[in-house]
This record gives sequence, C-alpha cells and structure tokens, in this order.
Amino acid sequence: MLIEFGNTRVLCAASVNEGVPRWRSGSGLGWVTAEYAMLPSATNTRSDRESVKGRIGGRTHEISRLIGRSLRACIDLAALGENTIVIDCDVIQADGGTRTAAVTGGYLALADAITWLGAANRLNDPKPLSSSVAAVSVGVVDGRVRLDLPYEEDSRAEVDMNVVATDAGTLIEVQGTGEGATFARSTLDTMLDVALAGCAELTAKQNEALALPYPGELPEPRPGKKKGSK
Amino acid sequence: MLIEFGNTRVLCAASVNEGVPRWRSGSGLGWVTAEYAMLPSATNTRSDRESVKGRIGGRTHEISRLIGRSLRACIDLAALGENTIVIDCDVIQADGGTRTAAVTGGYLALADAITWLGAANRLNDPKPLSSSVAAVSVGVVDGRVRLDLPYEEDSRAEVDMNVVATDAGTLIEVQGTGEGATFARSTLDTMLDVALAGCAELTAKQNEALALPYPGELPEPRPGKKKGSK
Amino acid sequence: MLIEFGNTRVLCAASVNEGVPRWRSGSGLGWVTAEYAMLPSATNTRSDRESVKGRIGGRTHEISRLIGRSLRACIDLAALGENTIVIDCDVIQADGGTRTAAVTGGYLALADAITWLGAANRLNDPKPLSSSVAAVSVGVVDGRVRLDLPYEEDSRAEVDMNVVATDAGTLIEVQGTGEGATFARSTLDTMLDVALAGCAELTAKQNEALALPYPGELPEPRPGKKKGSK
Amino acid sequence: MLIEFGNTRVLCAASVNEGVPRWRSGSGLGWVTAEYAMLPSATNTRSDRESVKGRIGGRTHEISRLIGRSLRACIDLAALGENTIVIDCDVIQADGGTRTAAVTGGYLALADAITWLGAANRLNDPKPLSSSVAAVSVGVVDGRVRLDLPYEEDSRAEVDMNVVATDAGTLIEVQGTGEGATFARSTLDTMLDVALAGCAELTAKQNEALALPYPGELPEPRPGKKKGSK
Amino acid sequence: MLIEFGNTRVLCAASVNEGVPRWRSGSGLGWVTAEYAMLPSATNTRSDRESVKGRIGGRTHEISRLIGRSLRACIDLAALGENTIVIDCDVIQADGGTRTAAVTGGYLALADAITWLGAANRLNDPKPLSSSVAAVSVGVVDGRVRLDLPYEEDSRAEVDMNVVATDAGTLIEVQGTGEGATFARSTLDTMLDVALAGCAELTAKQNEALALPYPGELPEPRPGKKKGSK
Amino acid sequence: MLIEFGNTRVLCAASVNEGVPRWRSGSGLGWVTAEYAMLPSATNTRSDRESVKGRIGGRTHEISRLIGRSLRACIDLAALGENTIVIDCDVIQADGGTRTAAVTGGYLALADAITWLGAANRLNDPKPLSSSVAAVSVGVVDGRVRLDLPYEEDSRAEVDMNVVATDAGTLIEVQGTGEGATFARSTLDTMLDVALAGCAELTAKQNEALALPYPGELPEPRPGKKKGSK
Repeated sequence: MLIEFGNTRVLCAASVNEGVPRWRSGSGLGWVTAEYAMLPSATNTRSDRESVKGRIGGRTHEISRLIGRSLRACIDLAALGENTIVIDCDVIQADGGTRTAAVTGGYLALADAITWLGAANRLNDPKPLSSSVAAVSVGVVDGRVRLDLPYEEDSRAEVDMNVVATDAGTLIEVQGTGEGATFARSTLDTMLDVALAGCAELTAKQNEALALPYPGELPEPRPGKKKGSK
Repeated sequence: MLIEFGNTRVLCAASVNEGVPRWRSGSGLGWVTAEYAMLPSATNTRSDRESVKGRIGGRTHEISRLIGRSLRACIDLAALGENTIVIDCDVIQADGGTRTAAVTGGYLALADAITWLGAANRLNDPKPLSSSVAAVSVGVVDGRVRLDLPYEEDSRAEVDMNVVATDAGTLIEVQGTGEGATFARSTLDTMLDVALAGCAELTAKQNEALALPYPGELPEPRPGKKKGSK
Repeated sequence: MLIEFGNTRVLCAASVNEGVPRWRSGSGLGWVTAEYAMLPSATNTRSDRESVKGRIGGRTHEISRLIGRSLRACIDLAALGENTIVIDCDVIQADGGTRTAAVTGGYLALADAITWLGAANRLNDPKPLSSSVAAVSVGVVDGRVRLDLPYEEDSRAEVDMNVVATDAGTLIEVQGTGEGATFARSTLDTMLDVALAGCAELTAKQNEALALPYPGELPEPRPGKKKGSK
Repeated sequence: MLIEFGNTRVLCAASVNEGVPRWRSGSGLGWVTAEYAMLPSATNTRSDRESVKGRIGGRTHEISRLIGRSLRACIDLAALGENTIVIDCDVIQADGGTRTAAVTGGYLALADAITWLGAANRLNDPKPLSSSVAAVSVGVVDGRVRLDLPYEEDSRAEVDMNVVATDAGTLIEVQGTGEGATFARSTLDTMLDVALAGCAELTAKQNEALALPYPGELPEPRPGKKKGSK
Repeated sequence: MLIEFGNTRVLCAASVNEGVPRWRSGSGLGWVTAEYAMLPSATNTRSDRESVKGRIGGRTHEISRLIGRSLRACIDLAALGENTIVIDCDVIQADGGTRTAAVTGGYLALADAITWLGAANRLNDPKPLSSSVAAVSVGVVDGRVRLDLPYEEDSRAEVDMNVVATDAGTLIEVQGTGEGATFARSTLDTMLDVALAGCAELTAKQNEALALPYPGELPEPRPGKKKGSK
Repeated sequence: MLIEFGNTRVLCAASVNEGVPRWRSGSGLGWVTAEYAMLPSATNTRSDRESVKGRIGGRTHEISRLIGRSLRACIDLAALGENTIVIDCDVIQADGGTRTAAVTGGYLALADAITWLGAANRLNDPKPLSSSVAAVSVGVVDGRVRLDLPYEEDSRAEVDMNVVATDAGTLIEVQGTGEGATFARSTLDTMLDVALAGCAELTAKQNEALALPYPGELPEPRPGKKKGSK
C-alpha cells in the first residue's frame, strides 16, 4: 500500500502472525505493533542506514511507537484474538509529514489485514475495529497556522504539531512542540481546529480506498488451522 | 540536584564543556542536550540495565529528546556562546511522572550551569535564559482529570498528558495520548487547565530554590581561557 | 529507479558525494560502493529488520559487496575524480534473483549519476564508463537449466549461478554453487551459455532505458564549487 | 542503601527474584550477582554513559565480577535455595575507592535481602551468611602506605591494593598492582596489615548499621507462593 | 589440524554437539556449519580483532558461509543424524588463499569428526560422506593463469577465482571475479583447467593424511547416551 | 612465539606501530597494550566466538588488561619513544593458567619487538626494559598449595592466585581469590613463596630463549623514516 501526501511517499504493509509476544501469551488478547524506517535515498541528502550504524536512532524509535500506539487505540484486542499484526511503514520519499502519512496509511494496511483475518475465520469477533484513524501535521510558519507542511516549510516552522484522530472526531494523540520557541494556548486551539478538519478529509479518502475490492487474494476460511504470515 | 515529586526522585546534574558538537562548530551558537536513565533498582520490579543490553530503548530515547528540546526552548543559544551543557537526569526512585520531574529538575541544573558560566565570564550575553521551564503530567482516571499521577494510578489512566510550560504560561510541549482509548477535545481542554495550574505552582517552587545561594564554589572569571567540565 | 524482473522489484538509487573515504583520499581516484537491503514486507513471510537486530547478516554483506565490485569493474575511477557514488538497492518485493536485479538496476542508477556529474562539469574525463553491466541468475531445476528462476523454483534448484557480464560479452563475476549437490563442468558450460544470452537481452533493455531523457533536473555546470549529494 | 566513604557515595540495592539462571536451574543452589556502574556526573569530568556507547567497558566488568565473587564467598548458596539476589551498586559521586565501597555496601544490601527472604519464609536454612564482608583500598603514595586514598592521591599512587576480608579476619580477595612500578614483598605485608585493620573498623560499622531495624516493610511469610522481586 | 599452503597456515578444528539448531530440530537431519577468522597477527600489518570492533565484517561472513556450504555438499545430512558439526578455521598466518586452505583443511577436520561419531555409534548410516572436498584459488597475473597465488601476486591479480571440487572432479562452487577488470570466457575455461588439476593434487594429499591413524582417542560406542562436544 | 605450559598453548605476537593513541599523542611516551583471546576449539567444550556474540566478555577484558599492565611495569615508556606495541595472546589450547602463560610469553614477544626497534634505530634509549616479567598461578587443592594447576585441578581449587614478578623478585601484580571460600593470611604467605620460586624458574627459561638468535629478519636502521608494522 503506497501512501502519497504531496511529495511524501510511504510504503505501508501489514503482516499477520498467529500467536502473540511471550509477555502477553495466554491472555486471549492480540497485538498490533509498527516499525517505521526511512530509505537512505528518501531524503535530499542521503542518510546512513540504521542497520549499518548498528543501532536505531531515537527519532525512528519515537515514530514507530507513535504509529503502534495510534493503531492500537482503534482496535479491540480481545476481538482480534491471539494474532499479531506488524505494520511496516517504509518511507520511499520524504518531504515533511512522514509520521502522519505512516499512521494514515498504516490504518489502511491494518484494515486490509482485518479483512484478510475475517475471511480466514480467525477473528474472535467479526468487527474488531472500533473507529478509523487518520493523522495530520500542522505547523506555524511566519505566524500562520498551516496544514501538512512540506519539508522546506517544516524546517523553519516555529511550532509543529501532530494530531491523530478518529472518524468520530475524538483524539488519540496530540503532540505539539515549540521548535526553539514557545506558543500561546490560543495557537494550540487554532492548530487543533485545522488539524481536525484535515483528519476529516483524510477519513473520507480512506473510506473511498477501503470501498474498493481487497487488493489481493483472500484466503479460504480455515478454522483451527495453522497459517504462515499474510 | 535531587528533585522529588511524591515518591519519584530524580538526580539532575549539568556538565559544561567548552566547544560544541562538530555539526554546529563555528556557528557561534551553543548547545544544550539531555540524557535520561533509570537505575535498575528505581522500579518495583528490577529493570535491566541498558548498558548490559547493549542498546538504549525507545522510551529512554524519547524522554532524553523531550528534556533536551524543552530546555533549548528557553535559552538563547547565541547568548550561550560555543559551550555545550549536558543535563543528566538519573531516576533513583520511580513512582510516575519521571519525565516531567526530569524536565523540572533539569531546568534548575541548567540555571545553575548558567550562573557558573556567568561567574566564569564565559557567556556572550549575561542573560541567556528567556524564561523558566516546568513540566507536569495529568491523566484521566476513572473519568476524572488528575494532576501528577503516582504509578499505581498512571498505569490504569485512560488518557495521559505531559505539558511543558514557561513561567509566562506559554507552552513548550504538549503530549496527550489515549491509552488504548480516545478522548474528547473538551477533555483535552480540562487537562490543559489543570496542567498549567500545576506548572505555575512548580515555577514558584523553582524560584524559591534558585533564590538560595549557589550550591558549590563559583569559578574565578577567566576570560579567554580553556576550562574543563564543571 | 524501480527495476522489475518478474515479480521481483528493486528500488535502485545513486547518491553523489564530493570527496572519497579517508583511506583513498588524495589518490585522485573516485569510489563506487553499494548497499543492498530487503524491506521486511518484501518476502512472503515477514523478515526481521537488520536495524532492529542491530547487525547486518552475512547474506546482505555478501550481496552489497557483489554489487559494488560489479559496478567498479566498468568504471574508470581516475576519470570519475574524487567523487563517491553510493548505489542503494532496496528490495520492495522479492521473488528470486534480487541480487542480479540489483546489479542490473544499479548500473542504470550509476549511469544516471555519471550523466548528472558530467552536466555539473565534475568529471576528470567525460566518459568514465568503459562498458555497461548486466546480471542474471541461472539454475538447474529438475535437471534442466533455467534462466532467472522465481523463488518457488529457486528454492528447489540443484545448482544456482549468478553471472555478471558486460555489453561486450566479457565476464565480471561468475558465482556457481551446488545447493547440497555437485555439478559437472558441462553443466557449468550450459549455464554460462544461457546466462550470457540473458545478459545480452538485458543490455538491450538498459540501452532503451538510457536512451530516454534524464529522469530529473540536471544541474548547472559549476566548476570548482562545493555541492551536496545528488 | 547509600554508602559514603569520604566523598565517595555509592547507592547499593538488592533485588530478589525467585528462580536462578538457566545454567544452574534444578541444582537446588541460589545465585548472587552484582552490577556496578558510575553515573556520568559522578566524576569531576563527565564520563560517557556505557548505554550510549553500546558496550560495557573492561573496568566496569572487572568491578562487577569482583563484587559478585566477594559476596558469594560469604553465603551458603544451598541455604539460599533457588533464589537469585542481584546487587546493584551505582556510584553517585566518585572520589577513590568506589569498588571497595561497593563491596562493603553491597554486603549490607545482601544482609537486608536475607532478612527479607527469611521473613518471607523462603530460605532453605535460616542462616545462609557464614560471615560478613568488608573491603578497603590501600596504596603507597610518596613511599608511605595509606588507607582508602581519595582520587587525587590514588591517581599518583605507586602501588594500589584492594583487600576483601571477613569479620573473622580471613581473606576473600587480594588484588595488588604496581602502577608502572614494582613493589617489594615487605611492602605487600605492610599493606595487608593496614588493610586488615581497616576492614575490622568497617565490620564494626556494618554491625551497627545492621543492628538498626529493617529499613522497609517485611513481607508476610508465604510458604510455597510465587512472588515478584523485592 | 594445521593446514599449510605455502606460507598460509590455518588451524582447522571440528566440534561435535548432539542436537541441531532449533529451526531444523525434529527433522532427523544433521547440520554442518563453519566459522572462519583471522588472528590479528596473521597479516603483515596487524588487523583489528572483530570481537573488539563488535561486529563481523562482510569478508569474514562471506568466507564462513562458503566453507559451510562447501562441506555440506559432500555429506548426507540424514545419515549424520541430529548432530551438529562446527568447523572452526582460524588463520594463523596469511599469505593468499586462506579461504581455499580453510575448505581443504576443513574437510579433513570433518572427516575426523565423522570417524569419531562412527566409533561412538552415533551415526544413522556409517558412510555419510559422499565425496571428499578440496579447494584452490587461481588467478591471472600479468596475463598468465597461475595456481594458488601468494599475497604479493594475489593483490595485483587481474582475475581471481576460487574453485571447490570433489574427488570425482565435479564442481561444488566456482567464484570468479574480475578485480577492476573483466575477463573473457576463454580465460575462465583455462582457469578451470588449472584449478581442477590443483584440486586433484590436493585430494591425493588429503587421502594420504586420512590414511594415517586417527589423531586422538576414539570414544567407546555408547548407544543412546548423552555426550558433550568432542 | 608459541608458549607451552603443560597442555596450555598460547600464541604470543608483538606488532609495532609508529605513533601512539590520540590521548597520549605529543607526550613523547610510548604505549604497550595487550589483547587476549581464546580460540573456540581451545577448550574441551567449544566456546562461542566473541566476535559472533558481538561483545567481549568480562573475563577477556580482565585478562587483556592484566597482561598490558604487567608488561608496562617493566618498560620505560619515555625510552620507547612514541611507538605503540600491541601484544596479541591467542590461546590455541587451554588447560589452566592461560593468563599467566600469556604474560610470560608476552614478555618474550615484547623483548623481541624491542630488539627489532633497536635494530631499526627507533628507540629514544637503547635499553627501555628495566626488568623481565614472568607470571605463575598457584592454587590450594585439597588443602595443599600447588603451582600451575591444570584445568581439572584448577576448577576445584579452594583458592586461586596469580602472581606477576620481575627477575629481581619484586612484585608487579598479586591477585588472590577464594573460590566460594576464604583463606588465612598464612596461606597467602605460603602461596607467595611457591609463586616466587616458580617465577624464578620461568625467568631462567626466558633468558635461555632470549639468548637464541632473533627469530626473523632484523630491519636496516632507518633514522627518521616512516615504517609499517612489524
């Protein structure tokens, strides 16, 4: 699943494994986790591979955790059953807003995985998703609030905020940061207005995408059988 | 500098080095960075050392970055000159809110380091701090908004928010997360009210602490001389 | 540059940096190197990220070295001047033959980088490429020699061989391996026949691709000026 | 438990886990191990975190092993039963003799852990400790033998020796090193005299500390029940 | 087992463990793997230890994999039964051709391990080795094909090829590389002629070595009993 | 240089590099350091490679540091000039006492390196070695003090001591450890008697070895010229 936000392009893929990590084994609950990464050639100046450096940077960790947390907020893990869904978000081209693009695209990959698990008869409950999830970034540039900044504007934004919201307009995550500056509470309110409107637009586009036929082959229902990853 | 918030105790220390990291060398700007860590015995159940595991976890990275960003928002790096201040925040005992305690205590360590640099005549401008910085956590437990949750309540909070603010009441960082749940915008507003009131209280206590004499020996002013770390 | 060989899809990108690694600095010679990686979702069963494992596996190392060696065989490093070209080959979808697809696509990325450097007036000699490079895999399945095996056949091949050749039909690299079996010298000869014919076909397709206009904006010629990466 | 030797301050804590490492599981024997670390701000010039460097240095390894070995010499591991006690020694402030302070304080933490395990009815035998353990450093500075050197003297000592002894005056560990110099056997004898006298003094102080009431809440005796760490 | 090829000296040792890696447990098949390493003092200019660097280089990985693959080609893993044989090849002195010396010596160590396992009555079938294995390097220097180049010639070879063959003259592995150059197919043919003749000579010497008595003590046959490593 | 103590065999080699580590550059002083390692096949049960594990264990660190410290005690680093000597001690076969064999053999490698440097006219002073160095282990087994225990006895020793001494009978390092036991000061005295007698015997053998001609080719004297490693 290739998500494009302006010039930002993120490949989002879901993998399904039977079973859950050891620490929650036997709980009857499923697990959703995410891994975010950037290809070296995604940025204007080539960035080093984290595999070559031998360690994952703080920014990568932070974004992977944000995506996982956001997607877990919209799913009933008991309904999922003891299955693990891993969402991989690999940035092919970066031009601002890669983390919010990854959340928004990650939701689509998650929804497809749920469809696949449903067809395979492997869910405890047919509707584990309680809402859809979309995310946008907003920023203040030259004193004005702007939605989804490209890299050139983002890098000189005074305030930067990421908002993750549901299709019901409730909030999952709000992260606002003054970039070497502080901001008034009224600015926060304006940024939230703009962000929630942006999320609503994305929700509409997600619904269009999910109304299309499933992009692949659905499995035969196989109750009680072992299966590999999707 | 030992900061206590309820049963949470964090040791905050500043180290001053002449010079800046290579990537900003020659810019005339200083640098402030932070490292957060938890002693293995700080938690109820012993946690493994990250040095033994050979890698720093995502949570540690995330918090170190938050502290550094928050403290850089209140300092004029040109006034600091090409000096680096490292703020170490080591959690001795953890009972909720360790990251906000670290920001609040980190500010005190930073202010002391600035006093020391000023006495040593090593600042480009005598007042590099544009404001003070304090941080609190707020959460929603059993449907009610609560300030500075201890661990037992924090672990069952439905929403968790960290707010970093200045003494002028402006915001530096807002991070709100639904923990496996979503929250209404009105809840966000109430949490911000409570958080800003909490930050104001902490600001008053910080001012009291900084009104006390400098906790150590101040250096002789040495213009143009090389110095080791504080 | 996205290369497709059957269901195998590899993203190949070149980055240009002024200067060379320290060990060959001052030699007047340029450097070409390559990094190969596989996205976790590229395989049927999700593979773990090497950045998460904290170390690069032997297979990845081996393939990165093969690509770099193959591309260096066709370029005059003195004509390149003290520039470094990094070829990134990221496998988006894997269905056999990813290493040979990466060499073949890597040559196209290299040729584009040379066009870009030429337009920027940064080459010591206008024609550093002495030949083109293409690679194929051949295998023996059920006793018959086959070109470019898909994964399903590759995994049960008795012999597996990768051949890298130039447009002049000379060889750069030959790697033949009995997979838990041995093979006669006559089989090697047949495999080479098939492989060289396959390389010739790929060379024709590469020429078609390179006859198209340069896929991007060419730089202004800037003699003697510092430049970032492409 | 905070141990102070002059300006050296070490936080010593014991954690109890049911079970033992896999390699001695089923032996009926317990295990005692130790981990030593230094906070970055403990030294005059800030030292880098080993977690950030991604590997534990030789000195840290060496000291952790010394502490573990010293404490295991005074305990009957069969009487301890299949429990593991981890002693964490974190240096808050370093001014010479951190390793011997860690052994001496580590014994107090171990004794408290034994009291706790006894109250919980989890020992195979009520008195697993066969002796107490204390340690001192002695050095030769300017030709004279001195006990417990502060950092300034330690760094110019010609000979440096660490002695770990029991309350019965027997030896557990003797480590004497010429620092870029050699020393006569008679010097070794004098150093041992001074060290054993020093250990006897520390033993007296340990007894005073252990005569105080247990610093925490003792558990209810729970025969045969699973418990988390202390 | 110390193998000498000119000035190249490689220590080859086999270790036998009961059981196989988890991923092939229960298959009834055994496993043979190899690890190659170079002592720091083996080369003219001291090379850094990979244990100190904290990661294994690409070249080491590549050679270890080549040795393992080559030896697995000559053994019936079902006849071996669920035993693992690890072949360690440590280069004591390096003067070209270390990898082919390691394969050739590794075969002798493997054959001894098989003799040992047979004496211990631990094989499923008494003759698991289907052929012997030997390897040589050939190169083109100053336009002439040469067998087993010493380092000084190897480093200026235009083409370098490693060939692994059986005593029946069939091939296991062929790796030919143009070193910054390309080569004609006819050159490949000549190199193969020379290499196969070289392998035949080595096979003769291996047979002589294996005709000597077993270099150690053979175990008592112990059907069905647990055993440590050889 | 291959040192044999009973069944223990250690390969000791010295490498000479012009220059010193950065932290002592410009001091006019040389540097001597050591690296100890064990081949996987050196022990009865194969041990894992530390390069494969990606980290050096505490024991390896500890022994490398002991060897380096011991050898630095007998050399005048100002007389050595800004040269670095690295002593590599690789255990080929281990049967107790590997660390003391490494110190004793390391001294021979060091003495050869000094001879080589002297012949090359690269020393500040022709006699940098102030004494020779030898080391032995002693242990208490079944209540009796024994010199140089083989592995089988060492593993059940009650006390274990390593002593490094000069040819003048002065001490460089004394490390005595009760293995899960304590020992009387009189036992320490007896162990020292036995150890010093053992060191004297080794010193005699070292002198014999060094009286033989230099095992290699000595360099031409080249004042003021750059040279590679020995």
